[in-house]
Amino acid sequence: MKTRITELLNIEYPILCGGMFRVGRAPLVAAVAEAGGIGFITSAHYETPEDLREDIRLAKRLTKKPIGVNLIVSPRKKLPNDEFIEVLLDEGIRIVETAGDNPGKYMKVLKDNDVTVIHKVPAVRYAKTAERLGADAVIIIGTEAGGHPGMDVGGLVLIPQTVDSVNIPVIAGGGIADGRGMAAALSLGAEGVLMASRFMATQESLLHENVKQWMVGASELDTFLIQRTIGSTTRVAKNEVSQKVLELESRGATVEELLPLIKGERAIEVFTNGNLDAGVWSCGSSVGLIHDVPTVKEVIEQIIDDAKSTLSRMNIIMG
Amino acid sequence: MKTRITELLNIEYPILCGGMFRVGRAPLVAAVAEAGGIGFITSAHYETPEDLREDIRLAKRLTKKPIGVNLIVSPRKKLPNDEFIEVLLDEGIRIVETAGDNPGKYMKVLKDNDVTVIHKVPAVRYAKTAERLGADAVIIIGTEAGGHPGMDVGGLVLIPQTVDSVNIPVIAGGGIADGRGMAAALSLGAEGVLMASRFMATQESLLHENVKQWMVGASELDTFLIQRTIGSTTRVAKNEVSQKVLELESRGATVEELLPLIKGERAIEVFTNGNLDAGVWSCGSSVGLIHDVPTVKEVIEQIIDDAKSTLSRMNIIMG
Repeated sequence: MKTRITELLNIEYPILCGGMFRVGRAPLVAAVAEAGGIGFITSAHYETPEDLREDIRLAKRLTKKPIGVNLIVSPRKKLPNDEFIEVLLDEGIRIVETAGDNPGKYMKVLKDNDVTVIHKVPAVRYAKTAERLGADAVIIIGTEAGGHPGMDVGGLVLIPQTVDSVNIPVIAGGGIADGRGMAAALSLGAEGVLMASRFMATQESLLHENVKQWMVGASELDTFLIQRTIGSTTRVAKNEVSQKVLELESRGATVEELLPLIKGERAIEVFTNGNLDAGVWSCGSSVGLIHDVPTVKEVIEQIIDDAKSTLSRMNIIMG
Repeated sequence: MKTRITELLNIEYPILCGGMFRVGRAPLVAAVAEAGGIGFITSAHYETPEDLREDIRLAKRLTKKPIGVNLIVSPRKKLPNDEFIEVLLDEGIRIVETAGDNPGKYMKVLKDNDVTVIHKVPAVRYAKTAERLGADAVIIIGTEAGGHPGMDVGGLVLIPQTVDSVNIPVIAGGGIADGRGMAAALSLGAEGVLMASRFMATQESLLHENVKQWMVGASELDTFLIQRTIGSTTRVAKNEVSQKVLELESRGATVEELLPLIKGERAIEVFTNGNLDAGVWSCGSSVGLIHDVPTVKEVIEQIIDDAKSTLSRMNIIMG
């Protein structure tokens, strides 16, 4: 396959495993690279820059193909991003996914070091900002996505709107978990797809088996949006805690009241010990399309096969 | 183009102009039929069955091609559906779109009279019910849609999930306004597309010019979901009234408090007199993709052209 994204990143298939807190780690990222896509080691979950270095080195022992690093830009979280950048440059990383706030302050050091920067956004106006700041590509995330999908706008509208609004290549994320979704995103004008939930439920992801099995059993109605009322909308798995958060929100709860329920430590308990009701954790609505826990290679091969059969079907329909 | 929907309905293109309160009337419906798709005269807005008869007759003077009638099944609204059905059978209508509640009680009379029944639903489980009741096809509506899109699930997830859950053909609605969207929906497994907002902004729609011009200027962020808190989620245009409704809802307003703002008479004032802030009115987020007010024929020709170029682009990408 050939798009501006496969050319830009020098990869076989325009499939990205987006940065995921606690999930984007060496074995998964290396497996995606080996299968012809690209994954991003997610810096924000390492306690120190040296821990990030160690995981980059582990990934590089597992694959010779390009891998990326994800940087979260957040005014709330005190992340040692300058040090993370030193480490990633040092270790020869030349592809970075930025997400969260405006990545402007890191752009110069990244571009001066020939890093390809892909910024991830939940709305058209931020895609325009990313282009103006010099990003090489932009990832647009629809309301289907796990984590922070911004406004209530679905990918069917958001993807073509973004494609029409910038000149840099657009990668589509949110709601994509199979070859039909990939074909749809490319039809809408995207030149690549980002998947996250699909890669959570793979052999190589370091999530507890309980989480993967919950995903296999979940339907499209088993995720929902919380934290609307505190201006930090996020799509999470339906469980005791997230339902409690929603209920508190409907009664006008403050951030302070919600914080004990939504804090990140609780998600770690879910991911590490498989205690599914321990906290809120991000999951995309594409979970309804996930029915197995294959290897990453099997996921990507199946997606490419299905995208090709989708295209054959389309050629027949359109005569 | 050829799918089970073009065969079932005997139309050239699998494009439906879905039933729309106050909008689905003879000139628009006839224009869609003439252009190779199919439209639905929306019975619920006629005061009497005889008014419906008159508009069906008008449509039939304007086109010899098949047209349909939309029936709203609602326990709240007292609609003379039995009489509407008598009229539509009498006038030779053989394609009906049902929407709202379970259409079971009308199924026998419709099927006994060889009517093709297409039921419109906002969730997978209702699609399964429609199939069990004997519907010939089902329309699945994602969160992108104007009116009542059910849960917060985007079309990228909802369309393939529905396709995987029923054997009858699936038509996709919500967020589709151009050829890229049509190609995407077909990629996801749909065999037809339903568009509503796109047809609102056409020469033949009987909406006030102010509404059409508002749509031309609107972005993907100019619609939002209201009435979540009263269990009747609906996507509407952003205006003074809908923003007021949202604000009241955030303070826990009751149905009684909201009713004066959300009642249908206000929408009629918007549609008829072009007083854009007079009331809440349904509009899909696909409005962000609508930039002109062409004829229905131009809309459909452009969509088919664009879907074909999309397919050519896909064939190049996939090699």
